Amino acid sequence: MTKEELIQGITSGDSRTLSKAITLAESTLAEKRDLALKVIAYFGPQDDTFRIGITGTPGAGKSTFIEAIGTKLLQDPTRKIAVLSIDPSSGKTRGSILGDKTRMNKLSAHERAYIRPTSSGSQLGGLAKNTRLAMLLCEAAGYNTILIESVGVGQGETEVAQLTDLFTLVLNPGGGDELQGIKRGIMEMADIIVINKADGDAERQANLTAKEYSMALHLMPENDNCWIPKVITSSAIKNKGIDIFWEKAFDYEKTVTASDWKGKHRKEQMLYWAKKSMQDLLLAKLGNYEAEIAKGLAEGKLPEVVARDILQNME
Amino acid sequence: MTKEELIQGITSGDSRTLSKAITLAESTLAEKRDLALKVIAYFGPQDDTFRIGITGTPGAGKSTFIEAIGTKLLQDPTRKIAVLSIDPSSGKTRGSILGDKTRMNKLSAHERAYIRPTSSGSQLGGLAKNTRLAMLLCEAAGYNTILIESVGVGQGETEVAQLTDLFTLVLNPGGGDELQGIKRGIMEMADIIVINKADGDAERQANLTAKEYSMALHLMPENDNCWIPKVITSSAIKNKGIDIFWEKAFDYEKTVTASDWKGKHRKEQMLYWAKKSMQDLLLAKLGNYEAEIAKGLAEGKLPEVVARDILQNME
Repeated sequence: MTKEELIQGITSGDSRTLSKAITLAESTLAEKRDLALKVIAYFGPQDDTFRIGITGTPGAGKSTFIEAIGTKLLQDPTRKIAVLSIDPSSGKTRGSILGDKTRMNKLSAHERAYIRPTSSGSQLGGLAKNTRLAMLLCEAAGYNTILIESVGVGQGETEVAQLTDLFTLVLNPGGGDELQGIKRGIMEMADIIVINKADGDAERQANLTAKEYSMALHLMPENDNCWIPKVITSSAIKNKGIDIFWEKAFDYEKTVTASDWKGKHRKEQMLYWAKKSMQDLLLAKLGNYEAEIAKGLAEGKLPEVVARDILQNME
Repeated sequence: MTKEELIQGITSGDSRTLSKAITLAESTLAEKRDLALKVIAYFGPQDDTFRIGITGTPGAGKSTFIEAIGTKLLQDPTRKIAVLSIDPSSGKTRGSILGDKTRMNKLSAHERAYIRPTSSGSQLGGLAKNTRLAMLLCEAAGYNTILIESVGVGQGETEVAQLTDLFTLVLNPGGGDELQGIKRGIMEMADIIVINKADGDAERQANLTAKEYSMALHLMPENDNCWIPKVITSSAIKNKGIDIFWEKAFDYEKTVTASDWKGKHRKEQMLYWAKKSMQDLLLAKLGNYEAEIAKGLAEGKLPEVVARDILQNME
């Protein structure tokens, strides 16, 4: 497809063209990638979209939660929702594309919803970077609400914050014992903490946990967005707490838009991605440097010497 | 000085030679730096040292605290202490070298203590990297306890954790309101939180704050070192809580040594510094890329395009 065809397809709301453009953006071939970049550049920045990051403990019900908040929001006919996931495993199997759609039955069937996990391709550090381009393409196609889910554990969690306006953390009821597997530091990045699965026997525990987190958050350093993080309970499966989530989320959006933090923050994120792109492009030149680094360190060399030697041999 | 002279001076415990070697390590001239690396490599890794990072809110009394814990520890005749600080301002003025010694009167006068802020030189991202080399040189010189203080706010705080075995956070009594200026995410990295200035009228408040943090920490994800972070109160100026700090610190050291986490962690840190060194060396080639990035973004270019174009023009 040519640039013009891609632009026309995206403008007309054809989701197949959108998918093709995202695949181009994920490509490891510079030519294909550049075509996607041109398409994105054509549409320019969409300042009035709302980008929501969702991360949390494994098994806390993130997908069910996304299905619930997505379906709810789509009751507003002006909303179009794209759900993108940063899934370190998707690069290998490609199986999770289907998996995601199965996980989000109602949402994936909706005509104003678009669901897609980002493949990392084989690009170094390409995962969240590819999600970023997929997000921009979705926004170009008129999706005004972007939900970015980090699947699994690792790098993705922190990078979601570099993509989004609002950072949501979904937790199980039960407090600290349930936090195995999430990265330290994530807690303090959250704008909204959702204690999910607050139903049946677990409801009391969820309320208690919410109260504890609420108190704990007062002891955290203040974010520069001047927003005091909120803790809510929900039962995505019973559709409870979904309205409250959106109430807080839109409160947040209003606050950070009024203070111009949102615009400033997006500019800072762009600076982050420019630098990250440069680093990745540079590091890509080094090829299989991981093995060489490990070898050098195993030989007892200083890290600084390993780095210097590898770079000298490159030239 | 030749490599042999440096090695001999450091071996004999001459602190002037140590200072000279650190200055070489901080140099922007590859030749001087390489000489320092050779000296460090000669001595090899010192696995049984104890590296303690200390960061915290401005005005929480970090220097007084370091003076107090350092003086206390030196009562043990087998201890030699090096205090290194990561001070973003020291590169410019060099004034803080004297400043540091004035701040730590007793400690700087002690024959088994060595105090030195690390200069960033003009190296890109060189601050904590230089502190690392200074630390290795101090260890080669027989300093078995390293205290690394991050002065001021910023990058340093997180990088201290990449240098040390134990991460200490020093806070004012008063809870969340006092946390302006420290980075989000730091709280969850702490192995020991010290509520300092627990004296006079503030003592009750400090105890309350300590209790609150203690509860809050139970809600944080567990660190992979299997250590439950401890919260203690102290009054460094009145020499209170200093014994308890060391008790917890040595408990910690025993735990992470027994589980072999300490050795594993140091290996991971070396991998971090090898990669960081490579990145820095690569980025150094790009010269004044900050301005170019800003210009490209201001022109409305995509971050990915800005990065690609700068790199293409470089070749």
